[in-house]
Parts: sequence; structure tokens; C-alpha cells
Amino acid sequence: MAEPMQVLSDHLTKVGITLLAEDEAAKADLIIAIGGDGTMLYASSRARDANAPILGINRGRLGFLADVTPDEMISSVDHVLRGDYTTDSRLLLQARLLSRSGEEQTAFALNDVVLQRSETGRMVDFETRISGRYVNTHSGDGLIVATPTGSTAYALSCGGPIIEPQLDAIVVVPVCPHTLTDRPIVVSANQSIEVRLIERDDTKAEITVDGLSMGSIRPDDKLLICAANNRVTLVHPPGYDFYEILRSKLFWGRDSRKRDT
Amino acid sequence: MAEPMQVLSDHLTKVGITLLAEDEAAKADLIIAIGGDGTMLYASSRARDANAPILGINRGRLGFLADVTPDEMISSVDHVLRGDYTTDSRLLLQARLLSRSGEEQTAFALNDVVLQRSETGRMVDFETRISGRYVNTHSGDGLIVATPTGSTAYALSCGGPIIEPQLDAIVVVPVCPHTLTDRPIVVSANQSIEVRLIERDDTKAEITVDGLSMGSIRPDDKLLICAANNRVTLVHPPGYDFYEILRSKLFWGRDSRKRDT
Amino acid sequence: MAEPMQVLSDHLTKVGITLLAEDEAAKADLIIAIGGDGTMLYASSRARDANAPILGINRGRLGFLADVTPDEMISSVDHVLRGDYTTDSRLLLQARLLSRSGEEQTAFALNDVVLQRSETGRMVDFETRISGRYVNTHSGDGLIVATPTGSTAYALSCGGPIIEPQLDAIVVVPVCPHTLTDRPIVVSANQSIEVRLIERDDTKAEITVDGLSMGSIRPDDKLLICAANNRVTLVHPPGYDFYEILRSKLFWGRDSRKRDT
Amino acid sequence: MAEPMQVLSDHLTKVGITLLAEDEAAKADLIIAIGGDGTMLYASSRARDANAPILGINRGRLGFLADVTPDEMISSVDHVLRGDYTTDSRLLLQARLLSRSGEEQTAFALNDVVLQRSETGRMVDFETRISGRYVNTHSGDGLIVATPTGSTAYALSCGGPIIEPQLDAIVVVPVCPHTLTDRPIVVSANQSIEVRLIERDDTKAEITVDGLSMGSIRPDDKLLICAANNRVTLVHPPGYDFYEILRSKLFWGRDSRKRDT
Repeated sequence: MAEPMQVLSDHLTKVGITLLAEDEAAKADLIIAIGGDGTMLYASSRARDANAPILGINRGRLGFLADVTPDEMISSVDHVLRGDYTTDSRLLLQARLLSRSGEEQTAFALNDVVLQRSETGRMVDFETRISGRYVNTHSGDGLIVATPTGSTAYALSCGGPIIEPQLDAIVVVPVCPHTLTDRPIVVSANQSIEVRLIERDDTKAEITVDGLSMGSIRPDDKLLICAANNRVTLVHPPGYDFYEILRSKLFWGRDSRKRDT
Repeated sequence: MAEPMQVLSDHLTKVGITLLAEDEAAKADLIIAIGGDGTMLYASSRARDANAPILGINRGRLGFLADVTPDEMISSVDHVLRGDYTTDSRLLLQARLLSRSGEEQTAFALNDVVLQRSETGRMVDFETRISGRYVNTHSGDGLIVATPTGSTAYALSCGGPIIEPQLDAIVVVPVCPHTLTDRPIVVSANQSIEVRLIERDDTKAEITVDGLSMGSIRPDDKLLICAANNRVTLVHPPGYDFYEILRSKLFWGRDSRKRDT
Repeated sequence: MAEPMQVLSDHLTKVGITLLAEDEAAKADLIIAIGGDGTMLYASSRARDANAPILGINRGRLGFLADVTPDEMISSVDHVLRGDYTTDSRLLLQARLLSRSGEEQTAFALNDVVLQRSETGRMVDFETRISGRYVNTHSGDGLIVATPTGSTAYALSCGGPIIEPQLDAIVVVPVCPHTLTDRPIVVSANQSIEVRLIERDDTKAEITVDGLSMGSIRPDDKLLICAANNRVTLVHPPGYDFYEILRSKLFWGRDSRKRDT
Repeated sequence: MAEPMQVLSDHLTKVGITLLAEDEAAKADLIIAIGGDGTMLYASSRARDANAPILGINRGRLGFLADVTPDEMISSVDHVLRGDYTTDSRLLLQARLLSRSGEEQTAFALNDVVLQRSETGRMVDFETRISGRYVNTHSGDGLIVATPTGSTAYALSCGGPIIEPQLDAIVVVPVCPHTLTDRPIVVSANQSIEVRLIERDDTKAEITVDGLSMGSIRPDDKLLICAANNRVTLVHPPGYDFYEILRSKLFWGRDSRKRDT
């Protein structure tokens, strides 16, 4: 994928833009991520620290996050440099894993925080609380706590709804729940979600944040998820349309199962 | 159903509360609805006009809306009369059906506005727009536009998520969509939803608001749904817990499919 | 759609095949249906009476049933006329609607028999029995009883599984069931399915067979569905592959939501 | 769990039945399993080798497989000993894991064979073939291949249908598939299912058979699943009714979400 990056670097240098090394992100006015939505997840953690907006350029097809395709890359970047763009502020989640021994780890998610069983062939049992209030005791493969951005990622595969990016909400989606009535719940982003494993000898589960491991959780640990103080700003060239991307990614309007009379 | 009403009337009279006839609702300080969630839907339209809060007493089991059971009725009412209660403000939807001839009908929903095919054996095709932006062209049995309150009613049967009552959101749920990727979308309550039928000779569909018919929609008509200016206030005796009601109604925690080793 | 039909007629006449009028179907050795899957449903009722196999030519894209596209029409028909084809015998359902007054109507389905509520805004309550054994009391929008062929039609939109055409099975799919644990059940094709409405004043529901109305059902009526004695034989040119059609119709392998790293 | 077993042993000895040690199962005329459905899965592997029928006694509530409750244990066993029982022959799956190095492992499942990703935060990509014919390339958490008996276990949590025990069928259920149109497929029990991982550096997945690990699968390995030659026979006291158990386990008919007018 060196090519688009080289083409873009040459162009930016030509028009007088200073390029910074990745570890200088904190000084950047704009972060340009070239890759797919995975690259955007990585860039978002840089952008959060740097407090800089991100423009995402996809290597292949349109992505949910990287919504500029290579062939429109130069013109899109020029639009943005001329101030012709829209911005879109995305909710981040903060996940805190508090262990019984008093240790605490923190991570941030643009998409989701996922708890999942670490042993095959066995369900994980856990309890959820929303802002301190007991919600449910679940059994199953795990739980997803997702942002609106993450609602079109793993959460969608597990039966969660699509949430428009502008809504300040968090969705809690059980993964393959044993209880068939255990359904996704959408709550306000000012709520906090707490998850604890139910005691059973040798139980543990894994926590993943935007697809990266955050470690294991055990019965006396506590996973706390809430909206982060910071948000990430996405920069879009003119004409950005969330619903157009949805239609494209989900093949809406190209219903080939429909019969022609 | 006469019994609890009589018992309650006697009690209220005894403690010096003035009872008003239903058509005097506008003068009431509190509306007490005795019945099930259906009665509450009816009472909510009264409450909206009267701008009075509602206390719901269920005839049988706990309801999502009527959350006082008959045996705790007197003590719950006494709590409320002493000022010992919580309130809970619920979003209402306003549905406007604009016909091609310029006529306009309006209705209000505490649960949902539903569009559904009127002919058996044939799908209805329709387009949705969110705040003027084209979303999708759907084929299927219809569409539900629900409040958080309505998210646990018909929308839940059609694969929609549960939305906590405090979240200012609207959920749009396709009913038996032909396109398998056509999924529920949750949007902010400051968005408006527009639905139009796709032209096909003799096409029509029915609009239902909180289960009551609002009439037919035809290809040149337009259905517009947005948050109403008013909300409805529910009064709960102390100890009200939305998640406890969910657990009770959805049999959470009573998972009889789970095996005992 | 006259064109492919004319082209085909000319070709068949040229190669010495006698064309029969539709009302002479009983004398035909082969029925060729030109249209979409809807045309195939109609042709299947002719084919059942005539005991002749059907070759389906789709006007547009590949269909589940009409699996020859116009541009390969002549060569496909020539293959079939030379004896170079495969056949595929499809289960039909027989639906009998027995009214309280003793009247009986019968209809046959290649896809499905559907019961659905006739009133908007109100659920229909009904009971099911499988070969005389009580199964469940359902509330919701209705019920689909589908063949393997129908499993990729309306039943799929309502959460039913795909059933391979060769399996002698019937699938019973509740439509938007109020009870969230009310799930599709697959039974052997030698079982019979019985459906009755639950008494409630003025209740009725509509019965549809392959999308065509069979009339209303009322609380004292009985709907009986079983495998028909006859089956319908589909003729396919060489290379027919059920899974290839599934992949094409369901966009399998073209997953645009997947991220490119 | 000693109690019911002691009570039962005493009773059986009193009525002149010879009790055998577990390793003498091959000489038994009847295997009695006391526990839950998990115990029944274990007993089924004994029963398969011994070619003896199993009677399942549940320690607590009714199970899908262990359908005698402790309080009716003695009378149920007496019925069975008097010849007053029904039998019910259940399909078993044979899973063969063929490694690139030529090794082969075999295991048998009464419920299901499950392939699942071993790494958290990353999808597993795999291909399926049915009787040698390519079906689909999947991405997601994994795949379940279940018997009718297993259709009410893990497969049900992942969106699979209920399959009546008498139907000779196998259901293939994708687990949290990334492609939203990737749906359960029911095939005849005379088909074989083949699963292979898609090559990607360091990819592997875990295979579980009735909840027990069978080991890992890697891109050059092959998992082959088909109906086993043997079946397992369940013995039921008079009055056994599969649908009654379903109603009990899935809370059918106790729909507490339904409103009381």
C-alpha cells in the first residue's frame, strides 16, 4: 500500500504542506490515515492524544470510517486543505479494568469494548449494571459495548441496531445469549456500564478494545465502561453522507432475492 | 374490572381527594389509569391534552407502563399523594399524514407509528428519509417508528433494540424486510422521519398510531414523524426500576433452557 | 416480455417442437415458463395438473426457480431437448381450509401457506398442532408454513432457515411473534400442520397460498397443511447448482462491510 | 447428587435388577443417567459404544434430554421396567479432523460440532462444502453443525431453527457472521459437511464436540462431519411429549410482555 501514500506525500509536499512523523502527531493540524477501517481505529488513538482531526483514505472500497477512495484522494485532500469539508465528532468509550488486587488499566474505543469467553465449549456468566443499577445476569459467548461508530461493526453481526453517529448513545449487545429474550439495549452516553463475571472456579474471560486485547477479567475484577472525555473528529470531503455509505456497505437497494414478477 | 376502580374511588374519596369525570381531565392534577398497557396508551392521549401526569395501575401482572399491581394499589397511591414518588417524562411522536390533495391529519404516539401493507400476499415498497436525507428503499411487510417506550412493544417483536426511556431517540424498524441487511436504525429525537410509498398501480398501505388506525397512505402521500412538543409524565411509587420490569417481562434470569450440569 | 418468448417460439418451431396452448398443458412433455419466480409459481400449478416438468427462464437476473437467463436461453433449451439436463423434484404443500359450516377449500403451494392478521394494529392469536399434537399458542402477525423451495422466500425474511430442496421437510415460521422465544420449527414432510384461531369476538385472519388469497379463517375453522401427493419437477440445464444461486441471490462472498485492514 | 442415585439404586436392587459398574456399560440393557443434559451428553457416548438405550433423570427441572424429574423417578423407572415406555432414536454426528500431516481424529456428537476462532478480537475465515459442493466462504466467530437434538442447544442461541428429533437432518449455523445474509442451512442427514480454514498466517480455530475440545484446526486441515452409523436411543416413560418440553423450556404460553387490554 506504499503507492497512494507516496502519491499523496508528493502532492502534499508540492502544495507546501509540512509532513510530520507519526510520533509528532501531537503537533499536527490534520491526521491523514491511509488504509481501511482498521487503520482508522489505530489512527483514532493517535488523534485522541493529539486532539487533531482525521481524514481517512481507503485503499480499496469505501469504508465506514475511511470514506475517501484512492482515485478521489488528491481532489478530496485539496478540498479539505481549502477549508471545504465537513466534520463529524465521534463518541469514544473509556474502558477501565479494575482488578481485585487494586490494579487498573484504561483503554479507549472508537468501536467497541468486547468481553468474551476464553474457553471454547463453555458459556461465560456475567452481570451487568447501568449507572449502578442491576440490569441482568447473562450467559453466553460474551457482551459488546459499542459506540454509534461501532454499531455497524461487530455489534451488527450480533443483532445490534445501527445507531446514527450523531446520537450520544451506547449500545450493549449480548453475544449469542443463552436466554433468547436477552436483547440489545441502547442507553444514553452519560450512563456507565459495569460488567462482572459470576464466580465459578477457574472462570475467566477476555476483554478486547477495538479488536486489541486488554487482558483477562476474573470474577473479582470489574469492567467499567463510559463515554470518554475526548471525542475524535472525522474530516469528510464535501458530499459525505452516512446513509449513502450504509447503502453501499449493506447492499441496500440491490436486492437480488426480489423476484421480477 | 369494576372492583379495583371502586375500591380506589372509595379510598380517594375517604382521604378527601376530588374525583373528576374523564372529560374534565384538563382540570386534573393527576390521572390514574386502571387497566393494562393498552389503557395507559389511551390515558396518555388524555394526559397529553391535560398536561397532567399519569399513574398506571395494572389489573393483573406488572405492565411496562402500568407498574402498580392491584394489591399494592392503595399503599402506592398513598405514597404518591404524600409526595413520595418519582416521575419519568416520556417522549411522544407526532405523526402527520399529508395527502396529495392537501389534507393533513395529525396523531400522537406514546409507543409507535406503524406503516403496514394492506394487501395480503404482497409486499409494500416504500422509501425513508431522515431529516430530508434519503435513507433506503424498503420492501416488506412495513415499518415501525417507535419511541423508547414503544421499543419494548411491537418493535421488539420485529428485531428492534430495547431503548432506555431516558434516551431522546427514535427507532426505525423494518417489518419482515425482504432485503436481509435492512436493519433497525436508532436516531436522535430531533430528527424527522419521512415515509413515502413507491408508485405501483393500486398500491396502498395502512398507518396505525399506538394500535389505532390513522387511515391509508398512497403513493403521492407523505407520512412525517417527529418528536411531539409535549411529553407525557408517568408517576411511579417509590422503588420504580425500569430494568426490574424488563427482567420480569422478559423472563430474564429464569433461563430454563440452561442445563443443570 | 414478448421478446424472449417470440425468440424462443421461433427457435422451437424451427427445430420441430410442437407448441401447445396453455390450456393444453396436460398434453405437454415440458412446460417452459418465461418470467421470474412469480411466473414459476403460476407455472407450477399448471405443471402439477399436467404432471409435466418445468424449465424456468428468467427475464432478468437469475431466479431461485427460473434459473436460465435470457442470453443462455437458446443453448439451455437445446441442451434440455438433447436430453442433457438434470431434474429436481420439489415438495408441494396441500392446504385445506375447513369451515365450521362444513365447507372445504383446497389449494397447493410450491412456496408457502401464510396466515396473517387482517386487522392492522392488532395481533392474531392462534394455536398450532403437528400431526395432532398441540405445539403452541402464538400471538403476532401470523404464521408461515413453507416448503424447502419457499424457505428462501417470505420465510427467510421472517427469520426462517434455508432448507435444501432435497430435504423432505416443512418449516413453520411465526411472523413477528409476540413471545420472543417463539422460533421457527422444521418438521418432517410426513407431518401435518393444523392451525386454529383463538376465539375472540370478530377475530379473523387471511390465508394466502403462494401469494394468492385463499380467503379468511375464523375461530371455528381449521387450516390443515400437509405434503401434497404430487410434486413438481424442475428441469435444469447442465451445471445447475443450488448453492451458486444462493450465493448470487444473497450476495455471499461480496461482503462490503468487511474492512481492508 | 448422591441422594437420588442412592434412592434409585436401593429401589432397583429391591426389585431384583442387577446394577453394573460404568465400565461394564457394554453389558447393560439400559443405562440410567442422573444429572442434567450435560450428563446425558456424557452418557450418550457410553450408550453409543454399549448400544444400550438411555433413560435420563434430571436432578432439577425438566431437561431437553433428561426428561424425568426426581419426584417421578421411581414410578417412571417402574413403568419402563414393566415395558411401558416409548423410545426415540437420535441422530449422532461423526466429526473427523484430518490434519495435513495425515493424522486423523474422530469424535461423536449428540448435540453439535463447533468451530470457533481461538483469538479474541479477530474473525475466523473458513469455507464450507456440502457433499463436496462449495457452499460459502464465511467470516465470523465460527460455525455450528448440529443434530436435531443440538438444535435446541447452542445453535438456538445463534439463530438456528428448532428441528424435531425425528427429522433426519443436520443444521449448519454460522456464529455471528460478518455477512448479514449468511444464514442457517438445514440439509439432509445423508449429506456430509466439510469445513476448511482460509489461509492467513498463524490462523487457527478450535473444534469442540458436545462442548469438549477436539483440538485446533489449521488452514491445511479438514473437518468432515456426517451422520454416524450408530444412533442413540432415548427411553421415555409414558406421556413423553417433545413439544411439552419445548413449551416448558422456552416459556411458551407464559408471555408476560403481553398486555392485559
